[in-house]
Amino acid sequence: MNKITNHLPTAELQALDAAHHMHPFTANAFLAEKGARVITRATGVTLTDSEGEQILDAMAGLWCVNIGYGRDELADVAYRQMKELPYYNTFFMSTHVPAIALADKVAELAPGNLNHVFFASGGSEANDTNIRLVRTYWQNLGKPSKQIIIGRNNAYHGSTLGATSLGGMKGMQAQGGLLPGFAHIGQPHWYLEGGDMSPEEFGLMRARELEAKIAELGEENVAAFIAEPVQGAGGVIVPPDSYWPEIQRICDAHDILLIVDEVITGFGRTGEWFGTQYYGLRPDIITIAKGLSSGYAPIGGSVVSDHVAEVLGREEFAHGYTYSGHPVAAAVALENLRILEDEKIVDHVKNEAAPYLAEKWHQLGDHPFVGETKIVGMMASLALTADKSVRKPFESPAGTVGYMVREKCFANNLIMRHVGDRMIVAPPLVMTKADIDLLFERAVKSLDEGYAAVKEAGLLKTAG
Amino acid sequence: MNKITNHLPTAELQALDAAHHMHPFTANAFLAEKGARVITRATGVTLTDSEGEQILDAMAGLWCVNIGYGRDELADVAYRQMKELPYYNTFFMSTHVPAIALADKVAELAPGNLNHVFFASGGSEANDTNIRLVRTYWQNLGKPSKQIIIGRNNAYHGSTLGATSLGGMKGMQAQGGLLPGFAHIGQPHWYLEGGDMSPEEFGLMRARELEAKIAELGEENVAAFIAEPVQGAGGVIVPPDSYWPEIQRICDAHDILLIVDEVITGFGRTGEWFGTQYYGLRPDIITIAKGLSSGYAPIGGSVVSDHVAEVLGREEFAHGYTYSGHPVAAAVALENLRILEDEKIVDHVKNEAAPYLAEKWHQLGDHPFVGETKIVGMMASLALTADKSVRKPFESPAGTVGYMVREKCFANNLIMRHVGDRMIVAPPLVMTKADIDLLFERAVKSLDEGYAAVKEAGLLKTAG
Repeated sequence: MNKITNHLPTAELQALDAAHHMHPFTANAFLAEKGARVITRATGVTLTDSEGEQILDAMAGLWCVNIGYGRDELADVAYRQMKELPYYNTFFMSTHVPAIALADKVAELAPGNLNHVFFASGGSEANDTNIRLVRTYWQNLGKPSKQIIIGRNNAYHGSTLGATSLGGMKGMQAQGGLLPGFAHIGQPHWYLEGGDMSPEEFGLMRARELEAKIAELGEENVAAFIAEPVQGAGGVIVPPDSYWPEIQRICDAHDILLIVDEVITGFGRTGEWFGTQYYGLRPDIITIAKGLSSGYAPIGGSVVSDHVAEVLGREEFAHGYTYSGHPVAAAVALENLRILEDEKIVDHVKNEAAPYLAEKWHQLGDHPFVGETKIVGMMASLALTADKSVRKPFESPAGTVGYMVREKCFANNLIMRHVGDRMIVAPPLVMTKADIDLLFERAVKSLDEGYAAVKEAGLLKTAG
Repeated sequence: MNKITNHLPTAELQALDAAHHMHPFTANAFLAEKGARVITRATGVTLTDSEGEQILDAMAGLWCVNIGYGRDELADVAYRQMKELPYYNTFFMSTHVPAIALADKVAELAPGNLNHVFFASGGSEANDTNIRLVRTYWQNLGKPSKQIIIGRNNAYHGSTLGATSLGGMKGMQAQGGLLPGFAHIGQPHWYLEGGDMSPEEFGLMRARELEAKIAELGEENVAAFIAEPVQGAGGVIVPPDSYWPEIQRICDAHDILLIVDEVITGFGRTGEWFGTQYYGLRPDIITIAKGLSSGYAPIGGSVVSDHVAEVLGREEFAHGYTYSGHPVAAAVALENLRILEDEKIVDHVKNEAAPYLAEKWHQLGDHPFVGETKIVGMMASLALTADKSVRKPFESPAGTVGYMVREKCFANNLIMRHVGDRMIVAPPLVMTKADIDLLFERAVKSLDEGYAAVKEAGLLKTAG
């Protein structure tokens, strides 16, 4: 009963996929020609595809399968909840037990006075909620001019029109537009943008761009600042240590809200429950999704401080989604949090998995193809380089080299992504040392093969 | 195993809910004082609350539980899929069987050449996708100036910043802002806005506002027009028969895309599979959600024509959600569509449930409190009135009277909503004649009691 193994031959599945399924972040004509890889099963940290290949998933699905695949407890809970109450709305003065229980649990786990949850079905919806939420907060306080939200270049906060404007992905903004009412400061990406400064000098400089931007826009016009503790989709950009304390100081000194996007860093990825705790932050709002349910069900939310919730609750907040607090998704998330807690998975990250991954990851820094290695908890990146002695990009368009290496990884049954010419991993938090050894072995092989291929193609060249 | 009946006492659940759970479209301070109704179980068309009350759900959850509650087949499928593959992404050249199978099935069911599905987790995400999708379509065709999307006053297309701007809900736009790049025309709401015109004259007039708006903005600047076949959250506003043919003519005559928002009307609600078929439309894109999974799992999407998909697929579309095509949600939706199809539920609507509901619904028109009754398939509305002889609103702020009647409905264990001073229903499609009789009985009782209460409060007054 628990294995659906009778599927069509791969080529037929690929043809149907190409005929009807539009993939995210994809040139679908190109994919149709190439044929998508069909993932059919997964357990622990390992995917199986329709050809029977066993693939090590070092991206945890999409930064989300924190507890690993194949945890039948979550299927049991989904089954029971779906039979009991498969759906009910939380509009119109109604509620249900799974939404209550999950809100209560999240409030318990979330740091400080973040005690109130507005549910969504994922990070994009939750961050989009944050836009209307902070603007309405200031309106309710009688400061309706405070509407602008400041984000950062190369940040990722989701894919809706609003979330794309919170973020700083130029390619996304070129499709659909960058909205007015949003501003952006530079990212703390020392390797690429730090020039001759030390990382700490550069981190301070970047943080102070926030203060300058607030002054430029006028504090009376700024609603909030939003940032990921560690930029995820931007390439696992770990800020210099000087960065976050200065950001917190600036937020404290000015009358603006701090939104910390914990979609990736939440629920154990950094070795703390939240990235907020890793960096000692005091946000007014955090965004959650992904690890909240380990991806087993679509759910996310905004976790809001007592003060913000009180101000917002004074009036009707005319916002919400049909699936806000979906009972099955909420029940699944609750069971996921139980597993994370009962099995002390966050401690496992902090004391075992992350230190070992860090040890191995930094060894990759010895490879001639690797310019820097960075890691926080179970999220890591390395910069590919043509010349280790300088911090300069390749001559080829950004991503050309990274894509070649990713293709080697995929061929070697390792899911490691590239962002431009950076390689990144964010594996399930439950990885053992043996899993990490396998990750390392396949990463080295892929880097070796990628290096040879890039050299062969004449692309091992640094930009002017 | 299949009943989770041990929950806390109602008052404790309400206290926890008030402490941690921020409800959509709610003044949370008010709700905290009042205490939310806790729905604990459901089967068929009936909800059970934490006090054991049996409630007839004439809103199908939130316009979504098309097949009714308690269909264990969906729980079985969710269970098996979650054990097999609880999550994988469809980014990065990967796919999985549930997303393929669901895309294939939706393409089969959707009319005309709507053969390509871009998945989201609900209607808001899907409509937000449509914004970036149509703008990117025109960019890819070398017409980047075509960016404005025209919607309608009092339309509802979701709650993200973008979806709120597509829609025409002024109260929502006042919280978070109305974006540039969107325009709106009047709604075909004859009862409230038709003045001395006949419904048919008024429908034509409203449709021609689209042509005038295109001329005003310049066809070279307009990307698309978006509308619900029947406005749902706006109050189940059924357009005059003259409306849609004229809209289709205008869309055909001008170089713009037609997006039909089928989030409510899709999957059988009108007695056809899609509202598009009910009105004989030829859209370029339809938005789907709700009935796609009968609400058992959060999933939605944009179904796109061959031509639009081809143009979009030429380049990378830098858009997507972690949970686009979520395998468990997709598997659940697929099983829901199997049930809708195998049990001929759409035929049941067309030939049995909807005609009987219409017969009963129109009888409500005889009530002194009811100004008009409107119905399409299994979605219906009635206008409350202080004076049947004129089509004029109450003197009290819109919604005052409607809310009082809704409270009577809730007290009588009938979920019927109000939108302003209109009462609306959209029950599960599987309602039997006996269910409809019960609905009618409770509706009459609630109207009687509401009428008395409104009179008693001195609110039975028509605006000057």
